[in-house]
This record gives sequence, C-alpha cells and structure tokens, in this order.
Amino acid sequence: MTAPFELHPRLAADCTLLGDLPLSRLLLMRDARFPWCILVPRISGLTELHDLPRDRRGEWFDEMAAVSRAVLGLPGVTKINVGALGNLVPQLHVHVVGRHAGDAAWPGPVWGSGAAEPPADADLAGLRGALTKALAPALRDAGPGA
Amino acid sequence: MTAPFELHPRLAADCTLLGDLPLSRLLLMRDARFPWCILVPRISGLTELHDLPRDRRGEWFDEMAAVSRAVLGLPGVTKINVGALGNLVPQLHVHVVGRHAGDAAWPGPVWGSGAAEPPADADLAGLRGALTKALAPALRDAGPGA
Repeated sequence: MTAPFELHPRLAADCTLLGDLPLSRLLLMRDARFPWCILVPRISGLTELHDLPRDRRGEWFDEMAAVSRAVLGLPGVTKINVGALGNLVPQLHVHVVGRHAGDAAWPGPVWGSGAAEPPADADLAGLRGALTKALAPALRDAGPGA
Repeated sequence: MTAPFELHPRLAADCTLLGDLPLSRLLLMRDARFPWCILVPRISGLTELHDLPRDRRGEWFDEMAAVSRAVLGLPGVTKINVGALGNLVPQLHVHVVGRHAGDAAWPGPVWGSGAAEPPADADLAGLRGALTKALAPALRDAGPGA
C-alpha cells in the first residue's frame, strides 16, 4: 500500500498554501524578492522529475505551463525560471519563478541567492489573489491533511 | 515561414555537441566539476519551456527522462537537477545536471557557481562515450548546420 501524500515540513514552513491543482499542491514561497511558486505532485515517494508516472506527465506539463503563464502575468515579470533541484528537500517539487532584469538575483538563479525576505501581509494577499484568480477554476482548496 | 533552427552561439561556445535526439540537440557543458547535459529543442523562436508546442511535450519529457537516467548512471551521481532558466541565453534550453553531496556547488545550484573548469580531453571523451552509449539508438549525429 502506498503511503498517503504529505507535504515535506520544510516546504510547509517556507511557503504559503495556494491550493491544489488536479495533480499538484501549489505553494507560494514567502520571499518578497521574487514571485515564486512551487508545484508538488501529490504522489508520495517521488524525488526526481523523471520518476513522474508516464500517465501524469501531460498533466504535470499543463500545470507547470498554467502556473508559468499566471506568474508571467504578474506586474514586472518578464522571464520564467523553472527548476527541479531537490538537493535539500528530497520530495519532488518544481519551482516556477518570475524574474526580471535587475531583480535581487539577476541574472543568477534564485536558489542559493541569500536569505528570503518576509513579504508584507498585504503583498502576500495581493499575490495570492492574482494567482488564484489566474488559475481558477482548476485551482481548488487543498484537500484534507494540507 | 519559420526560420531554421540554429544553436545559440553561447551554447555552441560553452558546450560539446553529443548529437540529436528526435526533438532536441544534446550538448555537454565543458565543465569538469559536473556531468552537465543541455537539451535544446530544435524549434526556432522558443524561449520558455511552456512555449513548447503541445504535440512535442511528451517527446520533451521522454528525452529529459532518458538523459536524466543516463546521467544518473555515471559514477558518483546521486541526484539530478533539471532547470530551464534562460536569463543569459534566451534560446530555450534545459539543463540536466548530475549532482552528489560534496560536489563543487552542493547543495546550491550549479548555475552562477563560479567559472567552469575545462575538462581533460580523456575525461570528456569518457563522458561522451558513456552518455552516447546510454542514449543509443535514439541519439544520432547532429544534422546539417550543427
């Protein structure tokens, strides 16, 4: 029997929960420097992107694309960075980060670029509102255990 | 009429050509610190992963997975990092990097982690041999203009 999906505690600690897409839990990193989403496929035991079951790959790409477009629609974002690293948190999770020339890490990667800056409550609420609107109706409240 | 695919000069300068998979040109970064492949879908004008045409996405995932498995098969590699950044080179290209605890950038990302170290000819040849063997028969010599 497969263990039920549980979000890794480090992702839970660093992020705000936006909701569930059909395959993935959608998180928002609490870092005022970047609009930074994380997709976590709700399948327990995955560590690498290529381990995603064949019959869920199309869904994964659709969700990554939808989140990328939603982030590109935020003010000031001109480029998307997508990454599946997992050197610190083994649970498969995919970063979708909005970038622009001159941002706090440009042109380098956001990973390893210094400490997160806590966002103001109003900014976090604004970002959450814009992203949940852009991703409706596919994005729903996260299920039990979220 | 669509412009023919041409590899971005910076990718051509930094990498060794391994060959062509059905969708992507496969490159090997000349950096002795990491076994580092780059997949470049041979479709002109793409900059973001989510711009990949819907009917080529399955192929892209298959190629990313095959290259990931080939890199995981190299000695010492325990983790794959996948990234589509493009902050410096706008042409869509996807990094597939072999990592292990204690490597030159661990646990940080390889991007922005300092200057590449030129590999010895014998090491480059060994890496090329192992990867082309692992990816046969899908990997072929690159087409005209490569």
